[in-house]
Amino acid sequence: MALIVQKFGGSSVANAEKIERVAWIIAEKYTEGNDVVVVLSAQGDTTDDLITKANEINPNPSKREMDMLLSTGEQISVALMAMALEKLGLPVVSLTGWQIGMQTNTEYNNARIKALSAERIKAELDRRRIVLVAGFQGINRYDDITTLGRGGSDTTAVALAVVLNADLCQIFSDVEGVYTSDPRKIPGAKKLDEITYDEMLELASLGAQVLHNRSVEMAKRYNVKMEVLSSYVRKPGTKVKGVTKVEQSKISGVAMDTNVAQIAIMEVEDEPGIAFRVFQALSKEKINVDIILQSVGRNTTKDISFTVARTDLDCAVAALKEAQKFIGFSDISMNANVAKVSIVGAGMMSSPGVAAMMFEALYDSKVNIGLISTSEIKISVLVDEHEADRAMSAIHARFFET
Amino acid sequence: MALIVQKFGGSSVANAEKIERVAWIIAEKYTEGNDVVVVLSAQGDTTDDLITKANEINPNPSKREMDMLLSTGEQISVALMAMALEKLGLPVVSLTGWQIGMQTNTEYNNARIKALSAERIKAELDRRRIVLVAGFQGINRYDDITTLGRGGSDTTAVALAVVLNADLCQIFSDVEGVYTSDPRKIPGAKKLDEITYDEMLELASLGAQVLHNRSVEMAKRYNVKMEVLSSYVRKPGTKVKGVTKVEQSKISGVAMDTNVAQIAIMEVEDEPGIAFRVFQALSKEKINVDIILQSVGRNTTKDISFTVARTDLDCAVAALKEAQKFIGFSDISMNANVAKVSIVGAGMMSSPGVAAMMFEALYDSKVNIGLISTSEIKISVLVDEHEADRAMSAIHARFFET
Repeated sequence: MALIVQKFGGSSVANAEKIERVAWIIAEKYTEGNDVVVVLSAQGDTTDDLITKANEINPNPSKREMDMLLSTGEQISVALMAMALEKLGLPVVSLTGWQIGMQTNTEYNNARIKALSAERIKAELDRRRIVLVAGFQGINRYDDITTLGRGGSDTTAVALAVVLNADLCQIFSDVEGVYTSDPRKIPGAKKLDEITYDEMLELASLGAQVLHNRSVEMAKRYNVKMEVLSSYVRKPGTKVKGVTKVEQSKISGVAMDTNVAQIAIMEVEDEPGIAFRVFQALSKEKINVDIILQSVGRNTTKDISFTVARTDLDCAVAALKEAQKFIGFSDISMNANVAKVSIVGAGMMSSPGVAAMMFEALYDSKVNIGLISTSEIKISVLVDEHEADRAMSAIHARFFET
Repeated sequence: MALIVQKFGGSSVANAEKIERVAWIIAEKYTEGNDVVVVLSAQGDTTDDLITKANEINPNPSKREMDMLLSTGEQISVALMAMALEKLGLPVVSLTGWQIGMQTNTEYNNARIKALSAERIKAELDRRRIVLVAGFQGINRYDDITTLGRGGSDTTAVALAVVLNADLCQIFSDVEGVYTSDPRKIPGAKKLDEITYDEMLELASLGAQVLHNRSVEMAKRYNVKMEVLSSYVRKPGTKVKGVTKVEQSKISGVAMDTNVAQIAIMEVEDEPGIAFRVFQALSKEKINVDIILQSVGRNTTKDISFTVARTDLDCAVAALKEAQKFIGFSDISMNANVAKVSIVGAGMMSSPGVAAMMFEALYDSKVNIGLISTSEIKISVLVDEHEADRAMSAIHARFFET
């Protein structure tokens, strides 16, 4: 029999009915004879409601007290789930972050895991109890409660799978798995049986929003087998692991990200160190730069184009204007009406024709390509936002719907 | 400068506006130069809401998980109050039961305090921080969260006052202090400046509902000076202490309790051990018996009358009927339409006329007296429920409104 870590997100435990549904999923794995550790997020809108309460009192509370407040959400979830499992007559215990020995650094709101003893969990498993763990939370060296930030519950689940040497870490959500593209936009999108960690990492960062990168990175480092599956539909999801079957198609998915804006700065000196100055001005404001294109030098100047998150656009432009003298450029232009369309696949490394197929699909559907960026397992193109859906459909059809 | 423990109940922190009001009360004591430790209950209806959520899932959850659930209420309160004090620019830290080292026994839902290290609190006070403590909660030797049951937050406050050797423990609620009677019923009721622990204990158990007995008993044992006062009206409340001024009037207050029912069992054998059998049958069901009257024996039998909480009446009658053969009685009668009216006062010990004054007041207003019970500082009478208000008014007028 196996040791399984399961994680259910906030929408899966949003009300009594959904909690009971999840209790049955847990019960099934347990009664098959497995050891089961379950990580839960806060119910539905609980976290947002708590943030609203806080902001009514103080729009700028300390992060330490915010963590004290928000960590109650997951505690409520695990207690209620324990009651649902008790009703099914199963032995169960719920535990908070401090009770499982989840030690983090002191960065409130966005803490990193430093150590996880899990002694208590092991003892409870030895007693054949189902163990419910409040996700997203830990304690720091001052014994203060911390929260792990975005994707924190997924990260809790993978960390537990590492420490407990689990056979599988199942991440349940409201989608059935990882798809070749967004099923809401691409009717022909297919669920993947398997995907590699690297492919998953590229897809997550490209806006697929299935798993948070932190958890996938940790799973990759410790080789934790993950599965993404639905809380509502009882069938196998998508396995995330190190190596997938050899007959894997060349690419795994097509993703789109609309939280993108393009910035171009004109006529910078064509000399070493200029790019560094540009990106230093942005990193000071903690703005990440994605695709970068540097024009071929013209006389003694060149243009530099790059993309940032659209939510960072105003801040980025302000930072660059402030640094205009230091960097030395004539003009700055921006475009928020762009989208990034990407294909991801570990198979493309050995298939030189993939990029050509992608560009041909875009050409056939008359989509104009802006910037292009490639990595070993990814090709991204910047397109006009109004053409993005069409671009994604065309690429998806070319690779998956023949 | 002094060390003050303040406790605010759930209605005092029910919403953002009330939290801000309480923050000002705390801020005032702190900015006067005092060390301030504040114990908070869960906001308004939070506890009831959580119980409702639990019962939707499982009408009979384990007490362990119920404590896990309910303890979040106080944690939310202290985090929000910390944010309100941060907004006033004051240094503050909120702490849970486990963070202050509140060790209890393992009786979930109704745990007793075993030890309280308060090391963290002392360290925070040394840094001149206001310390906010989640009331009502602790942890047991398994590192499980426990709650202290009714009056738990008052008890937390007094326990902290003991351990920290506080100069004063202020209990804030929505009443201005301890009154000579219920001000909602007796317009002439007067606020007392002072009251002894013993008087307070009798008044609390008689339904005055100002302070829970557990906290007063602990305050008495460790001689903690308490003050009961209002969160809304900024004036001195009632001091609760060991000895009050000598000019104290003979009695401190008149209280009424309508959660009372009378049971009579007829014609039990007039022999030793019978009363024991009766009350053993009731204590098995954890039913407390209050006033007891045993009739003078008639031939070889006697009648026994006593009162129980009205909420226990059905259970008590069932237990007695089940034990009818074992006890040996002919018939059982009950009356739920009774009320207990009591006067309390440390001064009555040295004033033999007090009982006579009370009975005379009742006689003058034509209230019929059922059972009578007395202690050194208390006289209680059982009256018809419909005459109880009149009885209380008459007694109050006789002692306080001359």
